[in-house]
Amino acid sequence: MRKLSKELVNNKQTIFSMVLLFFSLNLSAQITHVEPPNWWVGFESSELQLLVKGPEIGSAIPEINYPGVSISEVHQAHSSNYLFVDLIIDASTVAGTFDIVFRRTDGTSFECAYELKTRLKKAEDYIGFNSSDAMYLITPDRFSNGNIKNDIDTDLREQRVDRSDNYARHGGDIRGIINHLDYIENLGFTAIWPTPMLTNDMNSSSYHGYAMTDFYEVDPRFGTLQDYKELAQKMESRGLKLIMDMVANHCGSEHWWMKDLPFNDWVNQQETFKTEGTLRNSNHRRTTNQDAYASAVDKKDMTEGWFVPSMPDLNQRNPFMAKYIIQNNIWWIETLGLAGIRQDTYPYSDKKFMSTWAAAIMSEYPNFNIVGEEWSTNPLLVRYWQAGTPNKEGYESHLKSTMDFPMQQNIISALNENEDWATGFVKMYEGLAMDFAYTTPEDILIFTDNHDMDRVFTQLHENIANTKMALSYIFLMPRIVQMYYGTEILMQNTAQPDDHGLIRSDFPGGWQDDTVNAFIGSGLSDDQAKMQDFVSKVLNYRKKSKAIHDGKTVHFAPEDGVYILCRIQDTETVVLILNKNEDVKDLDLAHYKELNLEGKTLKNVVTGTTLEWGERLKLTEKGPLLLTTKH
Amino acid sequence: MRKLSKELVNNKQTIFSMVLLFFSLNLSAQITHVEPPNWWVGFESSELQLLVKGPEIGSAIPEINYPGVSISEVHQAHSSNYLFVDLIIDASTVAGTFDIVFRRTDGTSFECAYELKTRLKKAEDYIGFNSSDAMYLITPDRFSNGNIKNDIDTDLREQRVDRSDNYARHGGDIRGIINHLDYIENLGFTAIWPTPMLTNDMNSSSYHGYAMTDFYEVDPRFGTLQDYKELAQKMESRGLKLIMDMVANHCGSEHWWMKDLPFNDWVNQQETFKTEGTLRNSNHRRTTNQDAYASAVDKKDMTEGWFVPSMPDLNQRNPFMAKYIIQNNIWWIETLGLAGIRQDTYPYSDKKFMSTWAAAIMSEYPNFNIVGEEWSTNPLLVRYWQAGTPNKEGYESHLKSTMDFPMQQNIISALNENEDWATGFVKMYEGLAMDFAYTTPEDILIFTDNHDMDRVFTQLHENIANTKMALSYIFLMPRIVQMYYGTEILMQNTAQPDDHGLIRSDFPGGWQDDTVNAFIGSGLSDDQAKMQDFVSKVLNYRKKSKAIHDGKTVHFAPEDGVYILCRIQDTETVVLILNKNEDVKDLDLAHYKELNLEGKTLKNVVTGTTLEWGERLKLTEKGPLLLTTKH
Repeated sequence: MRKLSKELVNNKQTIFSMVLLFFSLNLSAQITHVEPPNWWVGFESSELQLLVKGPEIGSAIPEINYPGVSISEVHQAHSSNYLFVDLIIDASTVAGTFDIVFRRTDGTSFECAYELKTRLKKAEDYIGFNSSDAMYLITPDRFSNGNIKNDIDTDLREQRVDRSDNYARHGGDIRGIINHLDYIENLGFTAIWPTPMLTNDMNSSSYHGYAMTDFYEVDPRFGTLQDYKELAQKMESRGLKLIMDMVANHCGSEHWWMKDLPFNDWVNQQETFKTEGTLRNSNHRRTTNQDAYASAVDKKDMTEGWFVPSMPDLNQRNPFMAKYIIQNNIWWIETLGLAGIRQDTYPYSDKKFMSTWAAAIMSEYPNFNIVGEEWSTNPLLVRYWQAGTPNKEGYESHLKSTMDFPMQQNIISALNENEDWATGFVKMYEGLAMDFAYTTPEDILIFTDNHDMDRVFTQLHENIANTKMALSYIFLMPRIVQMYYGTEILMQNTAQPDDHGLIRSDFPGGWQDDTVNAFIGSGLSDDQAKMQDFVSKVLNYRKKSKAIHDGKTVHFAPEDGVYILCRIQDTETVVLILNKNEDVKDLDLAHYKELNLEGKTLKNVVTGTTLEWGERLKLTEKGPLLLTTKH
Repeated sequence: MRKLSKELVNNKQTIFSMVLLFFSLNLSAQITHVEPPNWWVGFESSELQLLVKGPEIGSAIPEINYPGVSISEVHQAHSSNYLFVDLIIDASTVAGTFDIVFRRTDGTSFECAYELKTRLKKAEDYIGFNSSDAMYLITPDRFSNGNIKNDIDTDLREQRVDRSDNYARHGGDIRGIINHLDYIENLGFTAIWPTPMLTNDMNSSSYHGYAMTDFYEVDPRFGTLQDYKELAQKMESRGLKLIMDMVANHCGSEHWWMKDLPFNDWVNQQETFKTEGTLRNSNHRRTTNQDAYASAVDKKDMTEGWFVPSMPDLNQRNPFMAKYIIQNNIWWIETLGLAGIRQDTYPYSDKKFMSTWAAAIMSEYPNFNIVGEEWSTNPLLVRYWQAGTPNKEGYESHLKSTMDFPMQQNIISALNENEDWATGFVKMYEGLAMDFAYTTPEDILIFTDNHDMDRVFTQLHENIANTKMALSYIFLMPRIVQMYYGTEILMQNTAQPDDHGLIRSDFPGGWQDDTVNAFIGSGLSDDQAKMQDFVSKVLNYRKKSKAIHDGKTVHFAPEDGVYILCRIQDTETVVLILNKNEDVKDLDLAHYKELNLEGKTLKNVVTGTTLEWGERLKLTEKGPLLLTTKH
């Protein structure tokens, strides 16, 4: 009951909500869930399938009397407490609220109000993140506690806030993000991807958000739907893009439907789960998605195995589940005016469904973007999942963006290794060369680090020059860029590599009693302050650089510890010189004459000083030198 | 002069040759080279371009009076001692010999006889090596000395035979291969690839054959053209396929044309070479062939840099050089009735030319095969070069076969590593999964080892069980198979890894005074004899196995140190169980039920014993277990 009423309260005007609240209370015996909780007129697809849950509702017959809206089919589920109602919403339908009347076989009936809203933006105005964007990835529980009143919710299972425990909740929330939009924007970021903020009513470790127990509810400890909307609106007014982290593969074991599943095949291995048998985990052999030789048993174990025992594996081959997920995602895009989706554990779901899912979303929002998480350092696999790749077996993902785990790894290896024929910078050089195999490399997302891997400063053994080289190279690549919060102040997890709780440490200044406040630069070390400035300088340049957004890319084979990457468009040439030499390195610029820079004055993007591109260039310190012809 | 007369003597009937010999002696002042030395009627292409070399021949005007043959164009070169004559040979032309008359401006003239032969086989009967084949790679100087009289040729620069020096000639030759065709055939091989046997008149290290100083002459130390033809004919009569190793990228610095080059751009960096300046070596950055971001200077250095200073880099962008190479290769295919070409240093040549070259050959011989050497462990690069790959930039190589350096490395790593989540067998499993990205994986050549890398027994730290696993897996893969001579008797170079001379050690029994004779099994250790038997048993099974040639491939994700690869066609199922466990491993066969083997009797391919496929299978020793349903 709580869930339905909360959703409705969140979605409607106050007075109207009161009416509905009355309604829903009145109907409490009949209906506990109607999902999606509302819809819109004016979509490309005229179809809508409602999941309705209530005691013995399966035997009721629904009726709607509203111009343009008709029931095309009604589906009973295996559980008699569910009904799936297919609606057709004609293109001519006017926004408004109507009753769905459910008639029981005994002649009695009850009603439920349902609203069709007007869309606030045109479909083509949902502009997805792209290569002009730099994305700030936030673990909301760990970024800033903007509202200390919502730290604990007594209706939920985990009621502990303990900043000394890296696996407990720390209290960060949506308000904390809203409060620091200035900081994020000043750093030069143009988009924010918060990890999931929907309800995770789990007994423990609920802070990370990936075990959703309600796909339509904001976790009260992060805030309300209204807060989420406020974040979206405030970001939009600044020109910042909001990305939502979605999970199609699984839910949390405490999801409300787990106690009464609509179908026998709503989740994978449902029979084993119901009989409390031993559930098979996924074999995590993700190549079975591509492998023409994979055995049937391995394919099944990969897709139908559970990611972890606390996360029931959703069966997207059940057509009702498939529609549920697609509609849920569209509901959030439309409700928040999103600029993109990040899809978690992408290759663990049924791949046919994932294609249908992405196609359905991209058909409604042609300029949108979706990025899927395939944690593979093999470009062949990253390539396979990207839209437009001519896969031999004909698979088309409709997924515009993939994640560049291969290049992230190449960059780390390259910087940690000594320079030699096959080690060092050549890993970056030959890695980036593989872009020839991607249909649209500029739609791929490169990142410094993320919430599931060691902080980049730790990956680079806390070497500042190498960290600056990694960051500047990533910021200059023909890619969408993403950085994890706090990397700008050298956050690290060196004490415990691979410790997820530690990786997701609190951002200093996010809590009232913090002695260090990185938002205002107070208490930072010199190195931290310099790195913060470095990130800000480079990203603010990037923000306005056409050459970096869409320019031509040219790089030169590394030699003697120097590797040069350039981005060029019209009169703007951006030159990034990565230098591993500790001693002075005298560079013969004749080798780079094809850049046509001779005699030109270039500005150092970070220091603001200028130099003339002559015959030679003295590199005096290890690290990146970022120059531009644009002043 | 020596060269022209030799070619002609080799190519013609004895009496006719005597006439020509008289002719050529007579013309010695005028003509030193006519290449190709003869041609054929009945090719798909009616064009032929003759390179004619002689003092001041550039100013002469050629004439031909033979039905169906006409001169379409005559090209003067930069050197006045060359003339390039374009002929059109009509489809109706009858085989025969005619004179080419060269008229000088002073009114004098001289002649040269030229023969057009009849083709002995139909174009479609040149059947290239394919996935039914296992290829034995031989370094001829090191396999067997069949003719001790040709060990030294006093006309050539290197006149030393010294078996104690791994970089000197050892005396092996074509006769040595002919003498041991029984051995090779009994081992189960169906094809032989000898490394190049054309003249390498170099001062030193001429044994390896890759520094050719005459593209139309058999190195006298290996034998005569007649010997090469005898090898080809004897192989063909046994159903063995002969592959020739070609080098389009470079010649030897002592090539006859280096003293008087026809064009100013016959070789790359010709001006530097002529002025004895410092030649740039190739930068060996092979990704510049694919990389859309590669700088112009790096692309140029890759293609136009010399492979090594003793090997002038041929400029295939010169159209006369391009035609020269193509015609030379066709001349050898037709002369020897080849079943394939192996192209050396494939990505170092101009890639547009390499496409034209392969297309020209495949157009004349539609069922032929060519394999190019791209030494890269990155499947994206191997893939790029294979015919039919839908490359983004549109490049089509026409190269049917590539080399599987990626899988060779995966297999070695997998077997040397301990089993863990991401190490050990999983490298083979996930590596083979990448076949999804190849247009025709069965046309790729996998190999145990070759003449440029450590012996596989050395790569596997002389572990016999691991070597057997590597070999049996390679022999079972959906691939063309290649093994280096002597691997069957565990030849190794453990004392000096990467020592090419040592890698190419003498095959024991190939020389009269050898105390061990592996051809007849005398003096071999027990381990060597067992491995020889193992290779023979598996390859002789492979020879007749439709399942291995074209069957379906299924493999199971490695678990607990066991990895299973199967090949299946109709009633034949071949099961290879690779087992790393030293202790007894009890395998639950229920996991493999999709193979439908329950209750079937399977034969052990190596031991000949049988077993029934029941509920469980006890693996009692580390190594491969190769079973088949075909008895």
